[in-house]
Amino acid sequence: MPVTDFATTIVALDLIGIFFFAVAGALVAVRRNLDLFAALVLGGVTGLGGGIIRDVMIGDTPPAALADWRYLVVPVVAGFLTFTFHPTVGRLERVVTVFDAVGLSMFCVTGALKAVDYGLDPVAAALMGMVTGIGGGMIRDVLAGTVPVIFEGVLYATPALAGAVVAVLLDRTDLPLLVVAAAGFATCLVWRLLALVRGWQAPLPKGPASV
Amino acid sequence: MPVTDFATTIVALDLIGIFFFAVAGALVAVRRNLDLFAALVLGGVTGLGGGIIRDVMIGDTPPAALADWRYLVVPVVAGFLTFTFHPTVGRLERVVTVFDAVGLSMFCVTGALKAVDYGLDPVAAALMGMVTGIGGGMIRDVLAGTVPVIFEGVLYATPALAGAVVAVLLDRTDLPLLVVAAAGFATCLVWRLLALVRGWQAPLPKGPASV
Amino acid sequence: MPVTDFATTIVALDLIGIFFFAVAGALVAVRRNLDLFAALVLGGVTGLGGGIIRDVMIGDTPPAALADWRYLVVPVVAGFLTFTFHPTVGRLERVVTVFDAVGLSMFCVTGALKAVDYGLDPVAAALMGMVTGIGGGMIRDVLAGTVPVIFEGVLYATPALAGAVVAVLLDRTDLPLLVVAAAGFATCLVWRLLALVRGWQAPLPKGPASV
Repeated sequence: MPVTDFATTIVALDLIGIFFFAVAGALVAVRRNLDLFAALVLGGVTGLGGGIIRDVMIGDTPPAALADWRYLVVPVVAGFLTFTFHPTVGRLERVVTVFDAVGLSMFCVTGALKAVDYGLDPVAAALMGMVTGIGGGMIRDVLAGTVPVIFEGVLYATPALAGAVVAVLLDRTDLPLLVVAAAGFATCLVWRLLALVRGWQAPLPKGPASV
Repeated sequence: MPVTDFATTIVALDLIGIFFFAVAGALVAVRRNLDLFAALVLGGVTGLGGGIIRDVMIGDTPPAALADWRYLVVPVVAGFLTFTFHPTVGRLERVVTVFDAVGLSMFCVTGALKAVDYGLDPVAAALMGMVTGIGGGMIRDVLAGTVPVIFEGVLYATPALAGAVVAVLLDRTDLPLLVVAAAGFATCLVWRLLALVRGWQAPLPKGPASV
Repeated sequence: MPVTDFATTIVALDLIGIFFFAVAGALVAVRRNLDLFAALVLGGVTGLGGGIIRDVMIGDTPPAALADWRYLVVPVVAGFLTFTFHPTVGRLERVVTVFDAVGLSMFCVTGALKAVDYGLDPVAAALMGMVTGIGGGMIRDVLAGTVPVIFEGVLYATPALAGAVVAVLLDRTDLPLLVVAAAGFATCLVWRLLALVRGWQAPLPKGPASV
């Protein structure tokens, strides 16, 4: 596959991931009975927030999300559609959750590999990959007035970290970039979908809280 | 009007806007019975937060708010005054709200034009203008433990975005900078004041929430 | 004392401060019955957040916390230990609080002096010192769904600001760096410990809230 096709594929997958992240974000706004503007902001923050945090931290300013208008239009469209057709979108939530997992798997890999490109060491790059995947959702939850859902047992961050680690480690081998990315992507996606299907949870503290 | 006068006018208007933003922020702290430090932080964050987010995102570090001590002193003074004389300030809230609208109209224009200067495309620059205007208030609300008020129907972000769009569009014509800025400023101010007077609200979601 | 010894001492003290900040952060997660991941994130944010905010704002990207793996490993270890042994850690809270005061005293000084190195003027540098000390805890509280504890009368930010001011002022004299740092450190530590022992509080607003 020529390089330009690969790059186009990456951007297309990225935009798809942003779209579904934004739908999930706008749904939070609707369910809290917030206004249209909140749906657009929470959609945009969920879709773009993780990448913006990563870019600001690795020193790539202005962030990629501000340098390509498609990255701004996609969450706006997703927010409008969700706000307008929220009863339908709400019924499709299982579909949204699956595509959200696809987005997570994309972002943890592209975020980690970008951080490597900017000279971060493997540990920090893997962390940046996880932040790219989960950062937007965490800001969304804080803005919506709740503790981030991924703090309450939802197994979401661990698959993202695992996908990022796989991508960072394989990137140090001679494997082609496509294989590296696919392996990280698959690691995160399979783990996240299994967690959804089987109801896996992150460990909660044992024993009485020591207040 | 010579250039230096124009620059002085801009800084003076900027500081006035920061002052009233900071008063509004410190009032939130007082009403939640938070301490003096909270009044200063919420005042400072409200007055300077939007510009700091913008500067960090467009890559102008350290942010302008840290490079000129007047930008730090003004919100501190505003916070002290509000904390000390809060019953009086509270009664003047309508005045504060009007000046807050003036600050919003300033910030959306100066923020957007600065982003254009830093090479952002028009869509991203307009967004940065809006963020400059509304970002500080959103951080204030999150720190104070509430959902941002502009998520609950208050028509605040849309005028800021409109003012930023007008400024960005006219900036691409041959009009003098003063006219460009004035047009964006007036667009935001008139819209925001009309929304206040007439009680306009942003649309809320229709139908039952699809929980 | 040779320079390398001094630098090693600084890093060692820094890591000790991060460790105790992270323990305090992870304890918040356990007490809210959040999961292991939350304990690690709240620990990491508390330990590293202030320094990351400072570095992003003064333009030192990627932040120091991402450029040295020890800075990432220490809060992870602290988070795991706290999550696993939280009943014991909880009983030791007074010890944690004292070491937390040591960390605060470290961070306000190193943060302020780093900001001076990056060309910030004294007022802004002192502010950055305070932000380095208190920023992580504020993000932790927001993520945990509460108003920052330092907004409700806890005397924590003022000692940090005082320590930063002392360091910034003495840094403009001919005193050796070690003396400058020690004076700022001692100022913050003594004030904070006295506040703890004597129950000093920051002023709360007087009179009825003007709602």
